[in-house]
Amino acid sequence: MERIEHRACFGGWQDVYRHRSQVLGCTMDFAVYLPPQADGPGARLPVLYWLSGLTCNEQNFITKAGAQRYAAEHGVILVAPDTSPRGDDVPDAEGYDLGKGAGFYVNATAQPWARHYRMYDYVVHELPALVEAELPVDDRRSISGHSMGGHGALVAALRNPGRYRSVSAFSPIVAPTQVPWGEKAFGAYLGPDREAWKAYDATELVKSAPEKLPLLIDQGGGDEFLDTQLRPQLLQAAAEAAGHPLTLRMRPGYDHSYYFIASFVGEHLAHHARALQA
Amino acid sequence: MERIEHRACFGGWQDVYRHRSQVLGCTMDFAVYLPPQADGPGARLPVLYWLSGLTCNEQNFITKAGAQRYAAEHGVILVAPDTSPRGDDVPDAEGYDLGKGAGFYVNATAQPWARHYRMYDYVVHELPALVEAELPVDDRRSISGHSMGGHGALVAALRNPGRYRSVSAFSPIVAPTQVPWGEKAFGAYLGPDREAWKAYDATELVKSAPEKLPLLIDQGGGDEFLDTQLRPQLLQAAAEAAGHPLTLRMRPGYDHSYYFIASFVGEHLAHHARALQA
Repeated sequence: MERIEHRACFGGWQDVYRHRSQVLGCTMDFAVYLPPQADGPGARLPVLYWLSGLTCNEQNFITKAGAQRYAAEHGVILVAPDTSPRGDDVPDAEGYDLGKGAGFYVNATAQPWARHYRMYDYVVHELPALVEAELPVDDRRSISGHSMGGHGALVAALRNPGRYRSVSAFSPIVAPTQVPWGEKAFGAYLGPDREAWKAYDATELVKSAPEKLPLLIDQGGGDEFLDTQLRPQLLQAAAEAAGHPLTLRMRPGYDHSYYFIASFVGEHLAHHARALQA
Repeated sequence: MERIEHRACFGGWQDVYRHRSQVLGCTMDFAVYLPPQADGPGARLPVLYWLSGLTCNEQNFITKAGAQRYAAEHGVILVAPDTSPRGDDVPDAEGYDLGKGAGFYVNATAQPWARHYRMYDYVVHELPALVEAELPVDDRRSISGHSMGGHGALVAALRNPGRYRSVSAFSPIVAPTQVPWGEKAFGAYLGPDREAWKAYDATELVKSAPEKLPLLIDQGGGDEFLDTQLRPQLLQAAAEAAGHPLTLRMRPGYDHSYYFIASFVGEHLAHHARALQA
């Protein structure tokens, strides 16, 4: 991997790396924040993975969320990948909610997507393996994200018991099989068999998750997508029925933007730091 | 004025207003952060004005600096204007460092700029008068900014004794009459008479400033413009000769970006809050 950005930030470094992804069949950029504690001899720090939402790339979280301050306080490395495969060889679609910038953290099985759109394997396996081989980290991992990335974080954690110490989400798409964004994307990437979609739906997965990792969700009460695309009460009902611990915090007045994330990302960092350093 | 953005942020509101500027002869947008303390009955809070750098508009500071957290802690309102007049009627130039996005906080006297490019009067007089008439503020003002905006903040404070409680800057252009950015902009906006340029040069103004308002400057040691465009030692020498208090903090490794601003804007907010609330 090649470092293409390197900027001092809160006593550490906000970097961006570029590498060739075998899983995605393309060149990918991802952001890494190294807090000051990463500089010590033999330092090995835990990692919080952040999955971004529709239309984002690796830049949005690192320029807008202000999370570096908290990562520096807690000694946690932040890794923020892009949201889809990229490049001229990669198929795309009209609209912001399918194709580039909209990978939905699934392994596509339908054409023309199946060759490149394997973001699930990328964020759960390939990227962490690279990070753990090349950066001063150990195998303590947590995961979080926003909107489409909140969906990705919940799915990654629910499907992989033991792999993450903690999981949280801002404004996640908790039930993609039941809302327009998810129906469009899953129909394209996974084909018409709705049974196959359930493997990427947190509300389905929570019904039988083998590990009861607590779910932490913050949701803005003034979010313009709340009732149409997000519908956190669907996950809440499923978690309650399954006895799966869920903390859903409604935040009156907050919308879907990074102003909401910035306001509460410090609380999420503290939550993850406690789990990572327990 | 018309509110065109309104988003919950750190318990307060990140707003953007649009109004018709008489001074600039065009429609302008400016950003306002109202901390939670602004919500109280009869609340009147102090204001920190933030002047942005080349290529910026009213969005850069509010999306990237993370200053709202500190403004909410201290009960300070943030006001961030655009960096030039805007609109199809406003003359522009090739290049990022003249014309739109590059007003340099002067009152232009040369053509074709003189009609619209009056950013000095706009940020020092017209905008504060509007803010003080329409928002829950009083007449306690401080001012800060970045790069071209750091220049603007220093000039505004040095030329207007008693108007600001405190002033600070990140990576300011401290001596525009001696560096390429300033020579190009002042030559265009103010014409060839270099004597006239001195009214907008902090290093010149500090020699005879009637009020010894302390200057606080943070400067990244890894800033790509340090030796060519910024040259803080010019102001340092002039301030020392004049007995004008200046704190110049060199920050090794930091560059010219918002990652630098984000890392230290909390210290600047604390500095201004102390002066505003003294």
